[in-house]
Amino acid sequence: MTTSRVTEEAFRQVLHEGMPSGAAMPFEVVTLERGHVVLRLPTGMDDLRPGGTVAGPVLFALADLAVYAAVMTSLGPMPLAVTTDATIHFLRRPRAGFLVARARLLKEGRRLVVGEVSIANEGEDDSPVAHAVMTYSVPPDRATASP
Amino acid sequence: MTTSRVTEEAFRQVLHEGMPSGAAMPFEVVTLERGHVVLRLPTGMDDLRPGGTVAGPVLFALADLAVYAAVMTSLGPMPLAVTTDATIHFLRRPRAGFLVARARLLKEGRRLVVGEVSIANEGEDDSPVAHAVMTYSVPPDRATASP
Amino acid sequence: MTTSRVTEEAFRQVLHEGMPSGAAMPFEVVTLERGHVVLRLPTGMDDLRPGGTVAGPVLFALADLAVYAAVMTSLGPMPLAVTTDATIHFLRRPRAGFLVARARLLKEGRRLVVGEVSIANEGEDDSPVAHAVMTYSVPPDRATASP
Amino acid sequence: MTTSRVTEEAFRQVLHEGMPSGAAMPFEVVTLERGHVVLRLPTGMDDLRPGGTVAGPVLFALADLAVYAAVMTSLGPMPLAVTTDATIHFLRRPRAGFLVARARLLKEGRRLVVGEVSIANEGEDDSPVAHAVMTYSVPPDRATASP
Repeated sequence: MTTSRVTEEAFRQVLHEGMPSGAAMPFEVVTLERGHVVLRLPTGMDDLRPGGTVAGPVLFALADLAVYAAVMTSLGPMPLAVTTDATIHFLRRPRAGFLVARARLLKEGRRLVVGEVSIANEGEDDSPVAHAVMTYSVPPDRATASP
Repeated sequence: MTTSRVTEEAFRQVLHEGMPSGAAMPFEVVTLERGHVVLRLPTGMDDLRPGGTVAGPVLFALADLAVYAAVMTSLGPMPLAVTTDATIHFLRRPRAGFLVARARLLKEGRRLVVGEVSIANEGEDDSPVAHAVMTYSVPPDRATASP
Repeated sequence: MTTSRVTEEAFRQVLHEGMPSGAAMPFEVVTLERGHVVLRLPTGMDDLRPGGTVAGPVLFALADLAVYAAVMTSLGPMPLAVTTDATIHFLRRPRAGFLVARARLLKEGRRLVVGEVSIANEGEDDSPVAHAVMTYSVPPDRATASP
Repeated sequence: MTTSRVTEEAFRQVLHEGMPSGAAMPFEVVTLERGHVVLRLPTGMDDLRPGGTVAGPVLFALADLAVYAAVMTSLGPMPLAVTTDATIHFLRRPRAGFLVARARLLKEGRRLVVGEVSIANEGEDDSPVAHAVMTYSVPPDRATASP
């Protein structure tokens, strides 16, 4: 079954509560299916390192946001889910312009959800600029957190 | 030998060129010795998640900054060094207030430098809020980058 | 272009020189294309933890072997390539029987090659038991190592 | 408090049940304190790669073993604890001879325990050959598993 358990509207609402730094990012939701999320982010001058490349913490924040969304497509709105571990590989220098993050879940456990995400400049999926694997811990009281 | 190959002034200058997002962080340099760096960062409202905890990307950016500094204590000013991989474990919910990041180098290779960093609320070193291991790649033309 | 730069025979020869522990594993090569490798491994009693599950170090060794092969499909025979970092997530308890490891390269750099690999019980690709991301460092004298 | 909640004898007993591959390794226990473990392992011909260096999976298995022991110094005997994620950096080529693994816990949570471990050739602690961070998941029924 591929129906997301969170709508874009509900996800954006959760972000304001659970990840304000994510809510502040000017992203678009391209895909929101169960276990599979695609986000699109314009990058601007503030995100750049010299040479027009995007700063690592911006890529980390985008990866984190995409996996957070993927977790909710599986579990429903869950503001209190927290990242427990994250590994990111920076593969190429990103250029300014749109970045596309494609996240999918590797495991949907009762306590831990693991996802991977690949980030590329738009139209260049075969040459990702970053790849991350992240684990989210599901709060014990998840039932009450999902209205 | 423990003499740093970069001064605080030179490090801050490199940040403006090589990591503007780091230059914008209001950190203090507590220790800057060869292979060993301690930074102190006040956190404010913008960095917080609900409950007064600090957002993951802020912790990632602080960890990255501390290891970047540690790399330069060993190699000298090197704006073009880039992170190739980073693994961060989020261990406890940080509270608002001062965070202290302690970085040390595990390997000072010709091509790769590996460091680890532990971040704790000030005065609580035994209960770190995050721990990261990061690899920096040294540009092939490092000689010319280190005046 | 998808032609592997290493044949199965040459890969097995390199293993004897460069990774004897891999050469000792009774694996089959299912796919050996440029940047894409599939290996199949029977597991036996020696590899098992209680409950019939496969030990973590065996999964690590299989992941390492598959990415090592993928590196060579891109760069040609290279016994001296070494793993610099590896992150593995153990996702489900594997069962005894055949394990299938699918590796693909994320980056083919001059100095660093990054690959990811997913391991599943045969026929259960959608429920991987482990996922790893690994970096291999290419020796500076790679040209002479590739006859 | 630094008293280990597991004795060496109890730890070796748990290994037979919970990690037979670890039980088969000819290690000595040097230190077994709460949250802090030191193991010593001779390496032999079977573990070597060409040039006399130790194979990556052997280092991974030793790191895993040391953190597993550290988990038990905190939680008591717990054969069913499982690794959920592991990141290892290979820093230098180990030489044959004794390897010393020093593990310490970064977090002792109710559900997740995180540890780090540094492995060096004996007498060369300042030049580690490998460094790993690992998370162990504590089974929900831990109380019953700890007599």
